[in-house]
Amino acid sequence: MAQQFFSRRNLQFMLYEVLQAEDLCNYEYFQDHSRDTFELIIDTVSKLATDVMYPVFQDMDSNPPVYADGIARVHPIVRNYMQECGAGGWINPYMSYEFGGQQLPSTVYTVIGFIMGAANYSLSAYPQLTGGAANLLVNFGSKELQDLYLAPMLAGQWQGTMALTEPNAGSSLADVKTSAEDSGQGYFLIKGQKIFITGGSTDATDNTVHMMLARIKGAPSGVKGISLFLVPKFYVDEAGNLQANDIFCTGIEHKLGYKGCPACQLSMGDNGSCRGYLIGEPNKGLAYMFQMMNEERVNVGIGAASKATAAYYAALEYAQQRLQGRKINDKNPESPQIAIINHADIKRMLMFQRAISEGALALGLQVSKYIDLAKAGEESEKNELLIDFLVPIVKTYPAEMGILATSAAIQCLGGYGYCKDFPVEQYFRDVRIDPIHEGTTGIQGQDLLGRKVIMKKGRAFQLFKEELSGTINTAAEIDQLKLPAKMLEEAMIMVEQVTSHLLQTAVQGDTERFLSDASLYLEMTGILTIGWQWLLQGVAACQALNVNVSTVDKNFYQGKMLTMQYYFDYEMPRINTLCEILTRNEGFMSDVPLETFV
Amino acid sequence: MAQQFFSRRNLQFMLYEVLQAEDLCNYEYFQDHSRDTFELIIDTVSKLATDVMYPVFQDMDSNPPVYADGIARVHPIVRNYMQECGAGGWINPYMSYEFGGQQLPSTVYTVIGFIMGAANYSLSAYPQLTGGAANLLVNFGSKELQDLYLAPMLAGQWQGTMALTEPNAGSSLADVKTSAEDSGQGYFLIKGQKIFITGGSTDATDNTVHMMLARIKGAPSGVKGISLFLVPKFYVDEAGNLQANDIFCTGIEHKLGYKGCPACQLSMGDNGSCRGYLIGEPNKGLAYMFQMMNEERVNVGIGAASKATAAYYAALEYAQQRLQGRKINDKNPESPQIAIINHADIKRMLMFQRAISEGALALGLQVSKYIDLAKAGEESEKNELLIDFLVPIVKTYPAEMGILATSAAIQCLGGYGYCKDFPVEQYFRDVRIDPIHEGTTGIQGQDLLGRKVIMKKGRAFQLFKEELSGTINTAAEIDQLKLPAKMLEEAMIMVEQVTSHLLQTAVQGDTERFLSDASLYLEMTGILTIGWQWLLQGVAACQALNVNVSTVDKNFYQGKMLTMQYYFDYEMPRINTLCEILTRNEGFMSDVPLETFV
Repeated sequence: MAQQFFSRRNLQFMLYEVLQAEDLCNYEYFQDHSRDTFELIIDTVSKLATDVMYPVFQDMDSNPPVYADGIARVHPIVRNYMQECGAGGWINPYMSYEFGGQQLPSTVYTVIGFIMGAANYSLSAYPQLTGGAANLLVNFGSKELQDLYLAPMLAGQWQGTMALTEPNAGSSLADVKTSAEDSGQGYFLIKGQKIFITGGSTDATDNTVHMMLARIKGAPSGVKGISLFLVPKFYVDEAGNLQANDIFCTGIEHKLGYKGCPACQLSMGDNGSCRGYLIGEPNKGLAYMFQMMNEERVNVGIGAASKATAAYYAALEYAQQRLQGRKINDKNPESPQIAIINHADIKRMLMFQRAISEGALALGLQVSKYIDLAKAGEESEKNELLIDFLVPIVKTYPAEMGILATSAAIQCLGGYGYCKDFPVEQYFRDVRIDPIHEGTTGIQGQDLLGRKVIMKKGRAFQLFKEELSGTINTAAEIDQLKLPAKMLEEAMIMVEQVTSHLLQTAVQGDTERFLSDASLYLEMTGILTIGWQWLLQGVAACQALNVNVSTVDKNFYQGKMLTMQYYFDYEMPRINTLCEILTRNEGFMSDVPLETFV
Repeated sequence: MAQQFFSRRNLQFMLYEVLQAEDLCNYEYFQDHSRDTFELIIDTVSKLATDVMYPVFQDMDSNPPVYADGIARVHPIVRNYMQECGAGGWINPYMSYEFGGQQLPSTVYTVIGFIMGAANYSLSAYPQLTGGAANLLVNFGSKELQDLYLAPMLAGQWQGTMALTEPNAGSSLADVKTSAEDSGQGYFLIKGQKIFITGGSTDATDNTVHMMLARIKGAPSGVKGISLFLVPKFYVDEAGNLQANDIFCTGIEHKLGYKGCPACQLSMGDNGSCRGYLIGEPNKGLAYMFQMMNEERVNVGIGAASKATAAYYAALEYAQQRLQGRKINDKNPESPQIAIINHADIKRMLMFQRAISEGALALGLQVSKYIDLAKAGEESEKNELLIDFLVPIVKTYPAEMGILATSAAIQCLGGYGYCKDFPVEQYFRDVRIDPIHEGTTGIQGQDLLGRKVIMKKGRAFQLFKEELSGTINTAAEIDQLKLPAKMLEEAMIMVEQVTSHLLQTAVQGDTERFLSDASLYLEMTGILTIGWQWLLQGVAACQALNVNVSTVDKNFYQGKMLTMQYYFDYEMPRINTLCEILTRNEGFMSDVPLETFV
C-alpha cells in the first residue's frame, strides 16, 4: 500500500486559491461555516479515511460479500463504519439543520466524498447511497414517512438504496415493470424484480430502505407512469414495531471490481405482501429521481477522480523508489541504476495521471460550487443551467479517463502493477464501473447533445461558454498564460462550430443521425471543459508564484503550471481529431447495416 | 460464454485473399504444404480450441494456480492439453523436419496461436513458451543438450520457460545478477533469483527447462557479459537419469488476469549445486535471446488481438440478443424494445473493436509472412529489416489498443459487462499484461525510434514506406479506395515529417530529448501501420465484391469495407494529434523537474 492516497495541499489549493470556497459562508444558508470549520471537517474525515477506510481497502476486495440466506454478508468493517458515519454526521452534512444536517456546502461535501473514495471507494458507497436515499425522502416524502425512516438512516443504522434497474429496464427506465397496487390501507403492494441494487441487502445494517421505481396499476406506459416508493426490508407497523416485508435478496453479482459493496438482485411480492409507500405524487417518480440524479452523477465523477488520484500517488511513490535503468545518454553499465521517475516516459505517464485526476477533481468541485450558489439563491437559474449542462461531463470525463489513468498507473509499475501486491490493479478494476453506473457514457452523450445543448434555446450552452470566456479573458492578461488562453479559445470556437454543424441535422428532424456520435461529442466537450479547469488552476498558480513562496509551495505551483502545460500540449489537441470525426461522419454509424457485423 | 470467439471466415480472407499464403508453398522449405494442409491444420486446432480450451477459459481464471511445496498446482487441464499439443505437433510446427517439426509457415503458426489465444490465452501460453525455449535450444544449443532435452519438451512432457527477469533487472536486463561459475565438469553453478517466470514450476509437466540469463564470473558488466544457460528443474545425469537440481520455486504472483498460467519466483543455488548448461558461446546470451524475441513479440501482439477478438464476438452476440430501448425517433413507449445493436453508439463500439482486432491480426499475419519469406530465402535482408521495423508495432498496437477494445466490449454489455457471468471482464484483465510482458511499451517505443528508424541509415524505415506506397498505388487505381489511399499517403507524409523533425534532435546528440516521447511516436506509427493493413484488406474486399458473390459473402466484404471506412474516418485522424504533440513538445518531458511531482 502506498503512503499517500490524496493530496491535502491540492484540496486547499482548489478550495481556497481557485474556488474561494470560504466566500460561500457569506450566504445565509452557509453562514455558520468558515474556512476553519471546513478544515476541521476535512481533518476529521482525513483521519477516518486514513485510520479506518484505507487499511481495509485491499481486504474488502479480497474478501467480497458472500450471499447466504437472503443477505449479502459484507466485510465487518462496514457496520462499524456506517455507525461512525452516522455519529460523525457524514451521511447528510449538506442537509438543512431541520433534518439534522450541518448545512455544509456541497463543495466541501464533495471533498469528503473525494477523500473517502480515494481511501476506499466500496466502503464510501454505503453512507453516500444512504444519504442519497434520505435526500429523496427529505425532498419528496411525507412528514409521516420522514418521521419513521429518516432518523435511523441518518444514524447509519439503516442502509438506503436507489432501486431503479430491472432485468429488462437498465438504460431504458421507460420499461420499468415492477408494479404497485393501492391496498387502500396507506401502502401499495409491490411486485417485481430489481437487479444491480447496490447495498441492496446486507448484514451491515439492521434494515434497508429502498427508494424504488414502480408502476401503479393503470398508470400510463413509459416514463410518465413511473412512481417512486419507499420499500423497506422491515417496515414500521402501526404500533411502531418493525415487521419483515415481502422483499428478498435472491442473489448478488460477482463483479470485476468495486467488490466491497454488493450489487443485489431483489424480488418483491413473492407472497403478495410487499409494502411500498408512495413518495410524493403518483407518476412523478422518475422526475423526483432525476432531481437527485445530478448530485449522484457528480458523485460518480468524483469517485472516479478519487480512484485515479489514489492510483497516481501509488505510481508516484513507486516511481520515486524503484531503481531501474540509467539515463539514455549514460552508457556505463556500472553506474548505479536510477529511480524510474527520471525516465521521460514514466514522467509522461505520471503527468497524464495527474492532469486527468486533478482536472477531474477540479471540475467536480466547480459543479459543486454551482450547486451551492444555486442553493444559496445566487443567480439560481443560471447556476442550475450550468449544473445541468456540466453534469454529463463531470460524470463521464473522470469515468472514461479514469480507466486510462489507472491503466497508466499499472504501466508505471510494470510487472508489479499487474500483481496484487500493489494496489493499482484494484483501482483499474474499481474505476471500470464508473462509465456504467448512474447512466452509461452513451446515455450521458445523448443527454448532453440531445438535451442540454439545445435546452432553453441553447441558454445553458451559452452560459457554459461565458464561463470559459471569463477565464480566458482573465488568463489572457497574464503573460505566462497567454498561450493556453488562446488555445482554449480556439478549442471553444471549434467546439461551437461542430455544435452548429450537428444542429443543422437536428433541425432537419433526424434525431437518430444527429445523436449517432453523441458519445464522441461528449468526449470532445469534456476535453474542452477540463482545459478550462486547468487554465483556472493556472491563473491561481501564477498569482501565487508572483509573491514570495516557500520552496515547497514553489514546487507545488510549478507542478501545477507544468501539468497545465502538459494538458494543453498533450491532451487538448485530441479535440481537433474529434472535431474532424464529428464534422465528417455525421450519421455514418446510423447507416451501417446490421448484417455486415460478422 | 459466447458461441463464437473467432471468425474462421476472416482467417480465410486474410490467408488466401489478402496474403496469398498458399504461394509460400512454392518455396522449397514449405513445399510439402498447400492450402489443403493449412486448412486441415486449422480445422484440427479449431476443434482443440473449441472442445478443450474454450470450455475451461473461465474456470482457469476462477481457480488460479496455488503455490504449495515449491510448485504451482495448476488447472488439471494443463497436463492433458500439453500432452495433446505434444502429440499433435503444436509446440513446434514451424521447426524443420530435422528437429521434428512440420516446416509450417509462421503465417499459419500465427493463425494457430491466434485461435488458441482467443479460446484460452492462459492455456495457450504453456506450449508457446515451451516452443520458444525449444527454439533457442535448436538454434544455439549443442547437439548433446538437444539430444537430452529437446524431445520431451516437444512432446509436451517438459515445460520450457524464458528466465530473464530478476528483482532488480526487469526492463534493464543489463543488470542481470544471477551468476554462473564453471564447475569444470561440463556445467556451470548457477546462483541467483528470478521473478515473473511464466510457467516456472508447475505440476502440469514432469520437468521444467529454463532458458536462463546469467553472468559468468568475471564477465564484463552490462549486456555484454550475459550468457544463456539451460537450467533444468531435473537434470539428466551422466547415466541418463533425472536428478533434482538446486532450483526452487519460492512463490507465485497473484495477478490481475492471465491467471491460468503462473508467474513464478525462482531461487537457484541455495545449496551451491544448481547446474546450468551453457548455450552457445559465453557472453552472447542476450543476443541469442533477442534473436528469438522478434517472434515472441509477434506472439504477444497476436495474443492481444486474439483476446480483443473473443471479446468482440461476446459483445456482438450480446448486442444482437439484448433488447433495450427504442430508436431515438420512436417515441411510443409501447412499441417493443429493440436489440441494442440498432443503437448507433453500440454499433460504433463494435466497429471500434472490430477495427482494432482485425487490424491487429492482419499486421501479425503480415509480419509472419515476412518471417516466412526471409526463412525461404526470398529477399531475406529486406524482409528481415521489415520484421525488425514492425516488431515494436506488432507487439504494441494490439496490446495497448486491446485494453480499449476489451473495455468497449464491457461497455456494450453495460452492467453485465462488469460481472463475471459474461466473459468480457476477463478479457479486459487478461489483455492488460500485453503492454508489459516481453518488453513494455516504453521499451518498444525506444526500440522503434531509437534503433529501428535509424538502423542501416534509415533503410528499414524506407522499406516500410515502400510497402505502404505499394498498397497506396494499388488502392488508388480502385474507385472506392481513392479516398482512403489518399488519406494513408497524407498520413505517411506526416509521419515522415515528424520523423525528420525528431531526427534533427538526434543529430544534435541529445538522445534523452530525442526519445522523450518515443512511446507516442510508436503510437502514431502504429495507427499508420494499421491503416495500411486496412487498406490492404479494402483492396481484397473490393476485388471480391467486383465478382458475383453470395449474400453471406457480400455482407462479409461490405463489413470489411465499412470497418475500413470506420478506421480511416475515426481512428486515422488521431495521427494528426500525435504529430502535433511530437512536433511541438520535443524534450518537454525530459525537462520536467522531479521535485514538481507532488
